[in-house]
Formats: sequence, C-alpha cells, structure tokens
Amino acid sequence: MELHIEDRPRHYCGVFGIYGPGLDVARLTFYGLYALQHRGQESAGMAVADGWRIELHKGMGLIPEVFNDRVINDLRGHLAIGHVRYSTTGASHPINAQPLVFHYGRGQIGLAHNGNLTNTESLRRQLAAEGAVFQTTTDSEVIVNLIARSGGRDLEEALAHCVREIRGAYSLVILAENQLLAVRDPYGFRPLCLGELGNAVVVASESCALDTIGARFLRDVAPGEIVVLDRNGMNSIQVARREHWAHCVFEYIYFARADSCIDGFNVNRVRRKLGEQLARECPADADIVLPVPDSGTPAARGYADGSGIPLEEGLMKNRYIGRTFIQPSQNQRELGVRLKLNPIREVLAGKRVVLVDDSLVRGTTSGKIVRLLREAGAREIHLRLSSPPITHPCYYGIDTSNRKELIAAEKEVEEIREFTGADTLAYLSLEGLLGAFGDYGRNFCTACFDGRYPVPVDGGGSCAVFKYK
Amino acid sequence: MELHIEDRPRHYCGVFGIYGPGLDVARLTFYGLYALQHRGQESAGMAVADGWRIELHKGMGLIPEVFNDRVINDLRGHLAIGHVRYSTTGASHPINAQPLVFHYGRGQIGLAHNGNLTNTESLRRQLAAEGAVFQTTTDSEVIVNLIARSGGRDLEEALAHCVREIRGAYSLVILAENQLLAVRDPYGFRPLCLGELGNAVVVASESCALDTIGARFLRDVAPGEIVVLDRNGMNSIQVARREHWAHCVFEYIYFARADSCIDGFNVNRVRRKLGEQLARECPADADIVLPVPDSGTPAARGYADGSGIPLEEGLMKNRYIGRTFIQPSQNQRELGVRLKLNPIREVLAGKRVVLVDDSLVRGTTSGKIVRLLREAGAREIHLRLSSPPITHPCYYGIDTSNRKELIAAEKEVEEIREFTGADTLAYLSLEGLLGAFGDYGRNFCTACFDGRYPVPVDGGGSCAVFKYK
Amino acid sequence: MELHIEDRPRHYCGVFGIYGPGLDVARLTFYGLYALQHRGQESAGMAVADGWRIELHKGMGLIPEVFNDRVINDLRGHLAIGHVRYSTTGASHPINAQPLVFHYGRGQIGLAHNGNLTNTESLRRQLAAEGAVFQTTTDSEVIVNLIARSGGRDLEEALAHCVREIRGAYSLVILAENQLLAVRDPYGFRPLCLGELGNAVVVASESCALDTIGARFLRDVAPGEIVVLDRNGMNSIQVARREHWAHCVFEYIYFARADSCIDGFNVNRVRRKLGEQLARECPADADIVLPVPDSGTPAARGYADGSGIPLEEGLMKNRYIGRTFIQPSQNQRELGVRLKLNPIREVLAGKRVVLVDDSLVRGTTSGKIVRLLREAGAREIHLRLSSPPITHPCYYGIDTSNRKELIAAEKEVEEIREFTGADTLAYLSLEGLLGAFGDYGRNFCTACFDGRYPVPVDGGGSCAVFKYK
Amino acid sequence: MELHIEDRPRHYCGVFGIYGPGLDVARLTFYGLYALQHRGQESAGMAVADGWRIELHKGMGLIPEVFNDRVINDLRGHLAIGHVRYSTTGASHPINAQPLVFHYGRGQIGLAHNGNLTNTESLRRQLAAEGAVFQTTTDSEVIVNLIARSGGRDLEEALAHCVREIRGAYSLVILAENQLLAVRDPYGFRPLCLGELGNAVVVASESCALDTIGARFLRDVAPGEIVVLDRNGMNSIQVARREHWAHCVFEYIYFARADSCIDGFNVNRVRRKLGEQLARECPADADIVLPVPDSGTPAARGYADGSGIPLEEGLMKNRYIGRTFIQPSQNQRELGVRLKLNPIREVLAGKRVVLVDDSLVRGTTSGKIVRLLREAGAREIHLRLSSPPITHPCYYGIDTSNRKELIAAEKEVEEIREFTGADTLAYLSLEGLLGAFGDYGRNFCTACFDGRYPVPVDGGGSCAVFKYK
Repeated sequence: MELHIEDRPRHYCGVFGIYGPGLDVARLTFYGLYALQHRGQESAGMAVADGWRIELHKGMGLIPEVFNDRVINDLRGHLAIGHVRYSTTGASHPINAQPLVFHYGRGQIGLAHNGNLTNTESLRRQLAAEGAVFQTTTDSEVIVNLIARSGGRDLEEALAHCVREIRGAYSLVILAENQLLAVRDPYGFRPLCLGELGNAVVVASESCALDTIGARFLRDVAPGEIVVLDRNGMNSIQVARREHWAHCVFEYIYFARADSCIDGFNVNRVRRKLGEQLARECPADADIVLPVPDSGTPAARGYADGSGIPLEEGLMKNRYIGRTFIQPSQNQRELGVRLKLNPIREVLAGKRVVLVDDSLVRGTTSGKIVRLLREAGAREIHLRLSSPPITHPCYYGIDTSNRKELIAAEKEVEEIREFTGADTLAYLSLEGLLGAFGDYGRNFCTACFDGRYPVPVDGGGSCAVFKYK
Repeated sequence: MELHIEDRPRHYCGVFGIYGPGLDVARLTFYGLYALQHRGQESAGMAVADGWRIELHKGMGLIPEVFNDRVINDLRGHLAIGHVRYSTTGASHPINAQPLVFHYGRGQIGLAHNGNLTNTESLRRQLAAEGAVFQTTTDSEVIVNLIARSGGRDLEEALAHCVREIRGAYSLVILAENQLLAVRDPYGFRPLCLGELGNAVVVASESCALDTIGARFLRDVAPGEIVVLDRNGMNSIQVARREHWAHCVFEYIYFARADSCIDGFNVNRVRRKLGEQLARECPADADIVLPVPDSGTPAARGYADGSGIPLEEGLMKNRYIGRTFIQPSQNQRELGVRLKLNPIREVLAGKRVVLVDDSLVRGTTSGKIVRLLREAGAREIHLRLSSPPITHPCYYGIDTSNRKELIAAEKEVEEIREFTGADTLAYLSLEGLLGAFGDYGRNFCTACFDGRYPVPVDGGGSCAVFKYK
Repeated sequence: MELHIEDRPRHYCGVFGIYGPGLDVARLTFYGLYALQHRGQESAGMAVADGWRIELHKGMGLIPEVFNDRVINDLRGHLAIGHVRYSTTGASHPINAQPLVFHYGRGQIGLAHNGNLTNTESLRRQLAAEGAVFQTTTDSEVIVNLIARSGGRDLEEALAHCVREIRGAYSLVILAENQLLAVRDPYGFRPLCLGELGNAVVVASESCALDTIGARFLRDVAPGEIVVLDRNGMNSIQVARREHWAHCVFEYIYFARADSCIDGFNVNRVRRKLGEQLARECPADADIVLPVPDSGTPAARGYADGSGIPLEEGLMKNRYIGRTFIQPSQNQRELGVRLKLNPIREVLAGKRVVLVDDSLVRGTTSGKIVRLLREAGAREIHLRLSSPPITHPCYYGIDTSNRKELIAAEKEVEEIREFTGADTLAYLSLEGLLGAFGDYGRNFCTACFDGRYPVPVDGGGSCAVFKYK
Repeated sequence: MELHIEDRPRHYCGVFGIYGPGLDVARLTFYGLYALQHRGQESAGMAVADGWRIELHKGMGLIPEVFNDRVINDLRGHLAIGHVRYSTTGASHPINAQPLVFHYGRGQIGLAHNGNLTNTESLRRQLAAEGAVFQTTTDSEVIVNLIARSGGRDLEEALAHCVREIRGAYSLVILAENQLLAVRDPYGFRPLCLGELGNAVVVASESCALDTIGARFLRDVAPGEIVVLDRNGMNSIQVARREHWAHCVFEYIYFARADSCIDGFNVNRVRRKLGEQLARECPADADIVLPVPDSGTPAARGYADGSGIPLEEGLMKNRYIGRTFIQPSQNQRELGVRLKLNPIREVLAGKRVVLVDDSLVRGTTSGKIVRLLREAGAREIHLRLSSPPITHPCYYGIDTSNRKELIAAEKEVEEIREFTGADTLAYLSLEGLLGAFGDYGRNFCTACFDGRYPVPVDGGGSCAVFKYK
C-alpha cells in the first residue's frame, strides 16, 4: 500500500549526485530525482556547481511543483547533488528542505543526506559549546560544522575526520565548487550506488535513478567508503572496515522501487522470494491469492507461485487519491478506505482469500480491508505478511512511529488477528526473511524485528528534525 | 498505459447524480467524482439544489484542486449532479467546465454531459436563427436551449422533446431545483447506471462510483430511457426503443475502471477474456508474458492463462509522473519514456517476450517500449494487442485523434510491426473481441474498427468544444 | 477615503474599447484598463478581435493578477474591448466577470457594460418565455439576447432596437469580429468618451484612460448616441434625444479620477469648487483645514482657499493596506482605522480643525476618525462634507447600500453629528453642489439626495448580479 | 515618488520588537510591521517566544501575503521580533528573509537587523578560519556567530562584546526564549525608538509603528545603547559613547514615514522646512508649485509657503500600479511614466511651474516627468530638489546604486539640467539641509553628499547580501 494510507513505515529521503563535465547536470539530476520520488514527497532540491560557485534551488512539494524548465535552465554547471525528502504530517517545514549549502573556510559546501545519526545530540552540544550556531537540528548541519572545524588538508581529509566522529546511518552526497564526494556509513545501513554515463559518474540512493537517465550501473558504494569525484576522475578512500554489515532489510520489503538492485539483490526478485517462502512457512487452504496493491503485489505473486493458488486482482486502487484529501464527515467514516480501494465482487464473492501484504505497522488499514472484502462476499480471509512482526522502533532513518503505535510490540499474533478481523494471520519468520539472501543474510540490520541495534543510540534516539512552526 | 503517455484514445467525461433527502449530497458527489476521475482530469464541478435554488462550483484541475472542505460544506441541498472532464492539451478552458447552470422559463436548470452529439451544428444554426445566443459550443448549451424552447408541460416532457431532436451519443444528468433527470441515448453509446443508498437514488457513468460511496447497484439505465427522480420517487420514461444497441466497446478495452460493471459485464473479466482469446488467436513462442502497465495488465494476465506462459512484471512504472512534466532537452530525447517506464533487466535479459497492450493508436510509444526492452536484453519481442486495429475516428465522444494519426488507418499490420520494431505483431480480431460478450456482442458500436457508423454524422463530425484562447 | 474603508458608495465598473488597425490593441487595452482600475478591482477582462474571430481573457483580481505579458502577446487583433468590475464582499464570482462573449446568428459578439438597467427583470421574464436561457443575471446577458432576437439588417440596427427596449443607466462597448460599437444611455447617467491615437479611435469610461495611452481626447459620447467603428471609420447614430440629461453627479464628488474630464468638466476642478462653496456655505472658526486622505483632499484644498484657513496634512495614510486584511481581535478593535490612518500629533495638538471629506454614507468611519483626532490632541473638530446628505439608494449603477445603512435616510443632521462625535457637522447644499456646474447643473441626476428618480425602477430595483456560490 | 519608480535610494529594512506578557504579541507585531511596510516590501517575518522556545514564520512578499489569521493565531508567546526587508530586483531570495533564528550554546536566539556592517568581510573570514559555517552572507549571521563565540556571562554581556567587534550601521532586535534586546550602533546611523503599551515595552524603527498599535512614544534608543527587556523590566547598558553622532539624514529627506518622529524631529515638519529653505535658496519666477507625488509633496508645500506661489496638484498618480508590472513594448516606451503619473492639462496649460521633488539619483524619471509636463502645456519648468546632489554611494545600509549611476557624481548641475530638460534646476545646499535641525545638524552623516564617511569601510563596502539563484 502507498504512503497516503498511513500505516506504513516512512522513508527518510533519497539522494543523487552527478559529476558530468559537458552535460546538463541540472536536468539529469531532475530526472534522477524523479526516479527517487517514492523515497520522499515532502520537499525536493538540488545544488549545482560550475567550478566557481554553488547555486541552490529547493522547495516544498513534489519535484514538478518545485522545479520547472526555467529553473532547470538557470542552474548551470558540471556537477550537482539533489535530494528528495519524506512526507509526514506536521513537522514539514521549508527550513528542513535539502540540500543545505554553506559558506565556510574552504569556500562553499552543499550536502544532501539520507539516514539518521545516533549521536547528533552529543555532537551538537559539543559544537555549541565551542560557539557553533544552528539554524536547524538536522544531522546535515552537524556534519557540515564537523567538516568545517576539522583541520584536514583538504575536503576529503576533513570528511574522513568527520566520519570518525559521527555514528549511525548515513548515505551522503557532498558538493564543493569543483568536487563531489559520496560517503556511506560503515554499516551500510542505507543504500548508495555508482553508475557511469559516458565520462560522467553518477551516484544515487537506488539504481532505478541510474536506469532512468540511461546511466550504466557500476557498483554499490561500499560501507565505510568515501568516493571522490573531480578532475582527477574517481577516487576511493576506505575509511572504515567491518566484518559484517547492517543493511536495512526494509528497503527490500517495502521502501525501494521494485526495479532497483541494492547490494547485489534485485528488489522485485527478493519480494517474490519472500512470497514464495511465506507460502511455504504459512500455507492456507484458499481459492485465490489477493495482493494489497501496490506494495503487496510481488510477494502475492510469489505466494501464488509457491502455493499454486491462482493470483487474482480483486482490490481496485484509485490512482488519483493524492496528498490533499478531504476527510469523510462523521457519518461517512467507512468511506475512507473505500475511496482508495474498491473490492471487485465478481472476483471475491464466495471465495476463500489469501490476502498478502508486505508488512503491518498499526493494523488499522488491514482491518478496514478485511471488512471491505467480507462485505464484497469473501468467505474466508487469510492475512499473510511477507515480513516478521515489527516490535521495535528504528533509529537509523526510518519513521516506524513510536513503540506504542507498533501493534506487534504490544500484542500477540492472535490478538492482532482478532484486531484485523482476519480468519487466520501469519507473518514470515526472520529466518525466512534473511534466507532470501542466502549467506549474505547476516549482513542485515534486524533491529525493528528483534531489538538488536547494531549501533548504540544517543539518549534513546533523536526525532530527526527540528520542528519549526 | 496511462493518459499522460499520449498514445491513447481520450475519455470524454464522467457524470454523477444523486437525489438524497437527508444526505450530505455534495460530499457524496465529491466522492463519486473521485471514483470517476479516470474519465476526466481537466476540470471538475458540481451543482447542488435544495428545492429552491441551484448552487454551482467548478474549476480547472483534479477534484482535490477544485474542491476543498469549505466549498463542500457550503454546497447545501438534497440533490446534486457532478462532472469530470477529459484532459487534453490546448483546448482546455474554464468556460467549457461542467456542469452548466442556466436560468430559463421554468427556473434554474443544470446539466452534465458525457458523449457527443452528431447534429450539433445544424441544431445550433437553427437555434441561432431563432435568436439564441451561446457562450460555448458545447453540446450541453444546445441541449438546454432545446429544452427551454420546447413547449412541454413539464421538464420531463421538454426533455423528451429534446431527445427526439438530438442525435449521437449522450449520457446526461439534469438538475432542476427539486428534480433530477438522467437520460441515455437510444443507442446506449456511453454507459450510465443506477444505484441506491438507503432511500437515496444515485446515477453514475460507472458502477465503481456507486461502490465508492457504498451504494448498491440497481441496474443500467436503458438506452432511450429517461429516469426522473423527485419527491414522487423514481419514474422511468422509455422515449425511444431499438432492437440492437451500439455500446462503446472501448469502455471495456481501455476506458472504464476494471472494477466497474457495465451493461452486465465486469470490465476486468472482459479484459482477461480478451487476453485469453488473444492467446488463442495469436500465439507466440515465448518465455514470459509482459504487460504494458497499467492498462495492459488484465489482458496480459488472460494471455498468460490462455497460453500457459508465465506472466512477469518487467516494466516498472513511475507513479509520480504527473501532468506537469518538463520535457527532456534535445540530446536527452530518449529519456522520455524511460522516466515513465523502467525495464527490469533481471526479468528481461535473454528472454523471448510477449508484450501485451490493450490498443495501439499512433504506435510511437509502443516503438519506444520495444527499444527499451531490447536494450534491457530481451531476445525477442512479440507485441500483442487485445483489440483490433483502429482504422476510423470516433464521433460519439472519444477523441481518437484524426484519421491521419491512426497508424492502422494508413499502414498494413506488417508496416506497423516494422514501425514499432517488434519481431511479430498481432491484433485481436473483431470477432474475437465481440465474442467475449457472447450473443450480446451484436449490441456494440464497432465504427472505429470497421467504419460502420450507427448514427450519421453532421458535416463530418464536430470537434466537440469551442476553443477559446 | 479609499474603497477598503468600507464607508463609500461603490463603483460599478469601467469600460474601454479601441479600433486600431496596426496597433497592439491588447496592450493598449491593458494600459487603458490600468487607468480605470479605480472603477473596479474585483475582476478584469478583455476581448480582442482580428476580423475573423474574438478571443477572450478574463479573471478575478486586479489587472496585473489577471494579465501577464504572455497573455497579452497571445491576444492578437486590431480591435478590442475591456472591462474592470467593482469590488465587493461575497457576491464576487468568476461567472460575473466581463466582457461576455457569445455566438449568435450573426457570428460572435462581445459586451462590456457599466451601469444598471431598471427593467431587467421584465425583459428577462419576457425573453425566458420565448425560450431564452441565461447563465448569469447580468444586464449584459439580457442585452445580448435582445440584440440576437432583433430582426435588424445589421448589428447597428439590432443595437438601436435594443436601446429602445432597455431602460436605465448604461455605457456599453460591443465587439463584433470587425466592428466596435459604443453606446451611452439617453440620460447619460454613466460617463463615456472618445479619443484618437493616430488613426485609431478609443472609447473609455474616463478621459484619464485616453491620457494614459497617449490618445487625444475628442469628445464625450452623447447621451442616446451609438458610435460605430469599423473599416468605414467612425459613424454616429443618435437613437434617442432628450432635453435634459441625468448625469451621475457622484462621479465628480467621489468616483472618477481627479485628472479626468467628464462632460466638459475637470473632476479635480469641480472638487475644489465644491470645497470653496462648502467654505462659503458652512464656515468654521478653526486653525487648520484637514483633508481625509485621499478622497477629501481636493475639496479640503478648496475649503482652505475659500476660507483662508491653512491646509495641513495631519492624517497619514498607510498605502500598503490592501484587500487582504487581517482583522484585529476582540480587544484590539480600535486598531482598525489606526492601521490605515495615523494622526500627526505635531500638526493637531491644541488645534481647532475643519475635517473635510467628500461624503458620508454610514458615518462609522467618520466617527472613528473624529476619535483619533481627539486623542491626538485636536481641540475642536468641525466635520464638513462636500456633498449633500445621501438619503436614497441608487438604482443606476452605484452600490450605495440599502436605505437602512444610509445614516442620512434615518437621522437628522444633529443626530449624525452626535453619532460621529464632531463638534459641528455641515453638508454642502444640493444647490451649492449643482452650482459648481453653472447652467449645466440641471443635467444631473440627484436621486440619491432628493429621491427624484429620472427613470422608473422595475419592481423596486434589482440588485444587479446573480450571486452564485 | 514611490519605490517602483526606480530612481530612488532604497530602504534597507525595518525592525520591530515587543515584550508584552498577557498580550497577543504576534498580532501586535503584525500591525507594527504593517506600519513599517514602506521600509521593505520584499520579505517579512516574525519570531515569537513564550519563555521556552522560539517559533518563526517568514516569507517573501508583502505582509498580508506572508501572514494570515491562522498563522498569527498559531504564533503564541509574550515576546516577539519582526522584520520587513527591502525590495530589489534579482538578489531577492527566501534565504535572506529575516528574522533569522538559531540554536546555540545558550539555547535559541533570533535576530532582525536594519543597517549594514562595514567590517563584515574581515569578521566572516576570521570566523570561518575558526570553523564557522554560514548559510547566508547577511550581517546577521556574522553577528550571531560573534555572540555565540563570545564568552560572556549572559546574553547581554555577549552582545556587548559583539558590539565592540562590529563596525558600521545597525539597529538590531534580538530575541531569546524569555528576553528581548535592542541595540543601536554608536553613531546612531539608523533610527530606533521605544514605546510603551500598558506594561508592555515596544521597540521599532519608526514611531509610526508605535502609534499604529496605540503605544505611547517613550524615547529614541541612544546611539551605543543596549536595551534589555525581560521579567526584570527594562534595563539599559551604554556600551559606547561618542561626542557627535552620524544619523542618516535621508530618513528625513525621503525614507521615513511623514508621521514619524526620529531623534526628536517630526519628519513631515522637517520636509516642509526643507521646502521653505529651498524657496529661499533657489527662488523661481513661476505661477504654480507642483509636487512630484507622493514624496515631493511636503517639500512642495514648504516651497509654496516660502515663496508665496500657490501649490497645485497637477500630476495624478495611479495608485494601483504595483510590483508586477508589464513593460510597454518597443513602440510604447513613453507609456511607462504615463501609466504612473498623468499630468492634468487644466492645471498646467500655459503655466510656469516649479516642480519640487525630494532627491534625484539617476535623473531619468525626472526627465520623463519634465517631458510629460511640457506636452501638457507647461510653459516653463523649474526643477527644485529638497536635498543636495548625491555624489557618493552609501555603505551604511542604503542602496544608492553604485557611483556610476549617480548622475551628480558624474555631471555638473548644468549638465543635469540639460539631461532632464528642465528650464532651470537647483538643489538645496548641504548647509540648508542641516540648518533645518538647528544646532543638532552636526549629528548627521553627510557621506552621500560630501564623501566624509564617518566609519571606514572594509574593502570598499560589501554588497550586503549573498545572492543565491
């Protein structure tokens, strides 16, 4: 299901960068961000450099609301970074839009950031004690202050110093007047990959952004690696090295676009495998497999393949329901989910249904869908989820709501089944989830399922952004 | 594929009406229009009556752009009509937004119209000779002038007179201060159906609008029937009766929402049947069946079922590409379709692909998709279309572009294949198409496939709306 | 005082027209409307013809909000009409914006109208009985229906027929594909004048619009005259002739721009004369003459000249207070007038003040100003008004509010003085007012001062426009 | 003349602050800013504190465009600062809008600034070397970094340290969570005054803002004084003391609102005195005195009083010409000034005119006005300016354009006369200007007239704001 049905973990941004002498880098960044729009709909921005100075344009809203042809044409240069920011209710404020651009001792510097630091508070306190001032409480402003204070010989060194001080999840692109740097945290929490387009080098949160601009995928940025792009070509500095990593498995379950490849795995393929495994682990005696569109579709297909039960599309999604939505009035409450999803009676009447979704956070939407299906004549409803119960909040860049809103943190599976009204309910096991990656399965963070946080959290985890009015 | 990939016939509006004392009819109309948004994205509007007067609100844009909570709250009454209008480039003007509301001899009257009259020009000329003035050249303004001049005893009679004078395709909802009328042309070109919500009666272009507001489907409005809703309940007048009808078969092929039922047939089911028949008529030796999302998906599923070849989703659609779109610059031309559709190499590499789409108008987009698939490694591409070649323009409410743009009007199938670059190309036969409806198949208009126009066209067909600057 | 201090009669529009082969008539109309913006701030529009067709652009708001360079460039042709519409709260709706453009038996026709017919209702009823339909209840739609039904040989004749049927106040400009007509009602209620710009002929509500585009004033359109502009040059048809006229004297008192000349009298000069006469009729023993800016300024100057008392500007106006204004909260009520006018203590302290304004409708603003002046130290305040008490509503195109809101219709002068808190209060006499025009004084409508309505009013006067939601 | 006729020095902002427990300080700040709107139309903003935290709202545009009722209601607290920023072409960017709000070692801090520092560059360089980062190049960001790094015991001490480091012109209001500080530079370049409203204390750039909210004027903030407002009431720290000051005399000539009192002098009164002195110094044998509205009006009145020649208003200003203005096309160039000013032929024909304006920067507009007057029949035109020739740029917060654009820096008076086309042209002498202030006259900066810069300028003067795209 999509973001506007507010029962999903929320993304924390997407980043893009390009070093491309001779190319219209602003336009390519624009298209690259378009391909990453699913990672953030709240704000968008890009900073473009021409060797001498950095120009910035950013704003609230979707990409076509923030940019237009004239703006793109006016952003001239040969290197650029871009950013899309997640959508949320309330904390949204222009001041938090990225990239951020600063003047400092070495000139200008721009940053775009995906992730969440876990020691922001102590770093900020320490920096403020030394006289630093902050306009936001974003991690990015902390990072740039660390870079500015670092005594390194050049920006690479300064960034390497900074990387040693910050903890948590981050995939960063950094722009100087004539240099572009990309860095991925030592645990590899958030994705980041490299591509080439002729002589240009491109860096992006997901490979779908490379495809969209016609760039060829090169490789993922390694955890703990700084990639430096400038007139000397591409150089790599491995600033930290670990035995195992802690990639976010939710990128595969729900966040990333199905056509992306992350750390060697195609997202769509993983989702189908999870569905197949789910069929093996949690079979159901049913007539049809029914995906919750769109996010449950690949897993439902896998479930159908694994179980031999035919897949049917029996929930029609209204693709025009957008961000500005008028709430039904008191006596029209049940209309809410019906506006977004319409059950097709012809498909459902009298059927025993396996309803497949990718995950379940609060459970309220699932309950509404179950009711819709029953009204449309479904005889039995077996809810299957292609991920384990989410029992712990994430501090590495995903907004899973606080623990109280996580139904699986508070209730047993049977209670959850009762809450949703399904006849049976079953989750994919953690082993089943990681098994989809074979041996590589040990390189994932599973904190939201088992509370094993790979990086300690500063004071219990910050809430990411300062909320201005 | 969707509307913004401009290689599809375009809808000509959707209508909605409700007679519901005690209900918040404005809000219900708002939700009903939301369910019909796929039939028109250019403008939206509604007129609400309270027994004494009619209030109107309409504007350019999508429903949430035209309406907000305050507007809805201010539209008080117990009966209403609504309209969504198709999207096009250029001819879009506020003056053409519907409903239209007029003052005339009997008081106020509002109209919302889906379809296209074929004798508008001669009617308009005749009315103008009698002193009528027109602010638009929409059919609706002609219709209301005819009603106003008709000497009938009441509005029903006046409308019945009018129906005898107008020719062509129309599904109309008409609002008086305390009465709602619906009428469908004698050929039944455009769909129109009835539902009930408690004591209220609802009329809509498609049944999905009934589902969305929780109304129960009653029946389709019969071709040539006037339905009258007022304090006397629902009354029906059959003003014209024909042996066979001429429903638009493109509603099933592409226009209507898959979850709607029209004239007794579920749209999704028809689409799958067409795909199965296509597999029978036009088999292909291939590894996977690949739908062009989203419109080709049900037919592709049918093709997979019929052929036993597995369906794979190998084209990822960017759901954020909207109406305001910045065109790639000169040297980035090929980006266009890639922004909207990304082929998944993992799915396609080395594969022989059956590419299934619902129809082909100009062929340019299909050609781009074929190229994309080849670049992603597809070994063979067999393009299959779940409708016959479109060789003639439509004069009954669909914008199929003019004849010159219809590739099948100008080229043989082999030439079209060559133009698209597919290895093989095949269309569903007209018999195969109509066969999906069994005996009822003779009740369809097939003019766009064979030029047999059931209703003669005034001066060669009008261009529907007056184009103001 | 200005419009946003809502204690003034309100204008009812301004019109402009130009027949100018070889000129950029859209741009000239744009500038002409700018000069007439004081006559209407609610909506603006223009229609441009090129000999073959009429193009229309109009919208809500001030001229620069409705038009931009691109729009102006796209409106090509050699003849045009334009309109600005008055500002009001609530009844404002896009459908009432002008010009209106219609198709009818002779082709296209556009209208822009300043004034108010007094037999609209009976005409509309008669037209509706004959089958006419109306989208608005504006007078303009009635007029165009009359023209369309008139059997005249050409548009001039049709308009002449129409003029014989309509009653009341009107200055109209009418556009055909290659002809421009202007007409002023037989009483000459509203102003209308002619100018030339090279070979082009210009028509406008006020001469300031001619000055602005560099056109030379030719003459006023005569009451009852139709002026026809086309390839045959300028022709005049005198369709009605009266001995005396009934010009609106409020154009001189308050409405028109001070630099305009109307029917032979310069507005600024008349205002100063009224002030001089006011000084003669209603002297005051005072230290300074203080205008209420801006509308009271010329009369105050006249009063100063007439009385020998020096004029001082002691009320500072905030020129940035616009249409969107946030109301002070409960305990900040008195801020309202203070935001707009600030009394200068240095000028006022200890002074006996003659406060001069042009008119008084409800008296509430005057009361607030008197209080402000007292707080700033004024010792005595003698309120003098350069027009007689307004005791009757206007039915000829001015919104003087209804009779209940006219303080002078309900109260004696002494009661009004008490209400405002002034020490003395005096109005200019009707004789004094008309005396400023010498013998020509008998050619004015004085209905709002004495109730002598020169044209009978249909059913007590319509309220001008249909109020859509 | 007004700002949009771009031949005037431009303001550099206005500031407002209020410490008012129990009051709706956001609304009062809103009204106070309204009264200061003439000091800046580019952006507006306010920061409100409630003892615990600071909330910020700001944006581009006029005050009613930036704020609305809902925004004001949401800004709750008991102390606030506000800012309006000047209008310019090009350098306008949201990032430069004020107030700025920061987090730093002591908590939060907000700043609003009027003026221009002259050692910004060296301070910024020094701060950057110590690791500071800047998002803008505004002076305000430098100031807050200085405050943050200062080791003072409290904010007052930190500000006092800062004042010792910064040079140039500044009137600053600073907001902490529960404290408001105001400071005026030791030379007193820019105005700043104090008022009281019940128990609340108000600080503002001009006294008209006090009047508008009903506050009583207390006194001007002394040059070099820091005023501290908190729960301990109002305290004053005199951090610098000089024998003479260097007030900006242009506040009296043109910038400030006529109803303000600055450093003991009423602006309107000064302007009239300058006009009287101008009449003495530069008499003319003429029939009428004609002000250039609106800025030349008080001086013209003074000239009329001084010379005995009657004042006439012969130039009508179009009050609706706003910021978004469509330029006349090539062959309509001369329309520009005519749209804004219309000469009244009745007043001017055959007259010898003394045209009085307050200042002359580039001379182009004056030339256009002279041409307009001649066309309207003026026989002689004697241009008189109520300030001396501007020969040097200002580095203390006024945008007088660069030296090349200052006509008096490049040409002799006779050449300027020729350029404008006037028959005679004369400026007020510097002695005459300062004489209006009596003995106090030595306390003014006269740099723009004689190049005697009271404070040395860092590298020749900074360009004030960083220009983002």
